[in-house]
Amino acid sequence: MESEFVRWLRTRLPSSPLLRVGPGDDAAVLQASDAADEQVVTCDLLCDGVHFRVGTDNARRIGRKALAVNLSDLSAMAATPVAGFFAVALPRDRSVCAEELYEGILPLAEEFSLAIAGGDTNVWDGPLVISITLIGRCAGGASLLRSGARPGDHLLVTGQFGGSLLGHQFDFQPRIREALWLCEHYSLHAGIDCSDGLLLDASRMAEESGCGVVIDLQSVPIAEAAVMMAKRQGDTNSALEHALADGEDFELLLAVPQKDAQKIIQSQPLDVSLRCIGTFIEQPGLWQATDAAPIPLEPRGFLHGGSL
Amino acid sequence: MESEFVRWLRTRLPSSPLLRVGPGDDAAVLQASDAADEQVVTCDLLCDGVHFRVGTDNARRIGRKALAVNLSDLSAMAATPVAGFFAVALPRDRSVCAEELYEGILPLAEEFSLAIAGGDTNVWDGPLVISITLIGRCAGGASLLRSGARPGDHLLVTGQFGGSLLGHQFDFQPRIREALWLCEHYSLHAGIDCSDGLLLDASRMAEESGCGVVIDLQSVPIAEAAVMMAKRQGDTNSALEHALADGEDFELLLAVPQKDAQKIIQSQPLDVSLRCIGTFIEQPGLWQATDAAPIPLEPRGFLHGGSL
Repeated sequence: MESEFVRWLRTRLPSSPLLRVGPGDDAAVLQASDAADEQVVTCDLLCDGVHFRVGTDNARRIGRKALAVNLSDLSAMAATPVAGFFAVALPRDRSVCAEELYEGILPLAEEFSLAIAGGDTNVWDGPLVISITLIGRCAGGASLLRSGARPGDHLLVTGQFGGSLLGHQFDFQPRIREALWLCEHYSLHAGIDCSDGLLLDASRMAEESGCGVVIDLQSVPIAEAAVMMAKRQGDTNSALEHALADGEDFELLLAVPQKDAQKIIQSQPLDVSLRCIGTFIEQPGLWQATDAAPIPLEPRGFLHGGSL
Repeated sequence: MESEFVRWLRTRLPSSPLLRVGPGDDAAVLQASDAADEQVVTCDLLCDGVHFRVGTDNARRIGRKALAVNLSDLSAMAATPVAGFFAVALPRDRSVCAEELYEGILPLAEEFSLAIAGGDTNVWDGPLVISITLIGRCAGGASLLRSGARPGDHLLVTGQFGGSLLGHQFDFQPRIREALWLCEHYSLHAGIDCSDGLLLDASRMAEESGCGVVIDLQSVPIAEAAVMMAKRQGDTNSALEHALADGEDFELLLAVPQKDAQKIIQSQPLDVSLRCIGTFIEQPGLWQATDAAPIPLEPRGFLHGGSL
């Protein structure tokens, strides 16, 4: 439904010379008025019962997550955070107060030199909603889009995947510094952050790039939390299945030319591990590597909502 | 509560060289990276039961209002709309669909050459929430702030006030063109749009400017709808009281040097009428003009929420 809606919307939008990337990527890219810099704007709304649970999760963690999710989008564009706008609808029963949310927001904003530049605070009879818009900038028009992957590129990922429900969904570190460093030192063709599931987000990247991607399932880095999830009574998924489809890992998926990919994997230049888990190919679709020809793979994941 | 929160937040915010005006005005002003232009960003969130009622108000009008409210903030900064970001939480019962909202948003966006640059769409168990962030620009750093009024300035207003509940709250025209034209041809010291009530917003302008304002109640332009509201059975307010405190008029309140104010009032250069309803004075506070000395006036209004 969601992508249908985006398609419908795209057909309705008047074009704008100022808008370099509109609906469809992790964030929009605006031409800076007179400079070589590009401006990157991202907007994510989080609601009680979907992205967090008021009563179970404390407000500070909720606030931090709301900002971190948006910073993760900026990281996927290789953008430096500039300014943030925070709109909230607070429950009238005072089960959450704005200050507590900001106790989670402020340290993370400071860590990434993000100016909290405005917002809107409302009180209503409904549950908590937080909507955040972030503005970032990319030096020299170097925004990393989803759509730049080319056949032959390797698919590199940061960190581990799966089991984010056990805590990572709140505590993850947005990969801003990692994305900026890699962009500065290597040629990256495309990037996306993994919010809705590794397979789903990888297939989106391939689709937007007009190509396909073959995943080597044995190379997928599985988080300890995914192993723990799989062991829980009643859980019918394997640790690998959790890693492939849980979502909210907020790790980077990057399309990197083979030569640079090999250098990155060999040198492991970041504090977080980098792993090659697949290759982009001409044939559209999502594929599983086998000893013989690749076989189709279902792009499983968890849909929270959808960015325009 | 709200302004207390903003004050608290202001004390917590790290300063940013890029941020010329942060929390506290109608919108934030960011230095454009390398140009003389300033960037203006506004963010308003609207919720079911507070700003509109799903079931009573149709979705197209709701969508239009959500955008118009934000455009009105840009008008109060004398900013030209550039790009908009739309985040929504849609009720799972499908009582509202995103497309209908956009049927109201798109024509207004087109009218003001606003690029719909991104957003986020979610479905949840709660009522409808719409959060909009708009980016605008001001040529040559000419943003019109709330805080620029000086003693001796006249308080000019566009249009009429009161009774917006009868329809104007949805059908109002954001005063973008009017603000830009006036800014280009006259010296304006300060501006605010009337969202929470004429008296309340006038007093905010005076407070932010470190001065006071005397209102001549007999000069306040009263909307036909305010007269109709006052006549309704059970309504205990006069038409004037509706005009002073109803809110959601979305007209401009402008602090204009006496000489320019007189020229504007005499020439009536806009399609909408302009009226002088008061004067800024050194003595802080909100005052009512009388034949003798001004007497204190209560800053009545309707608090929907609060911009940071």
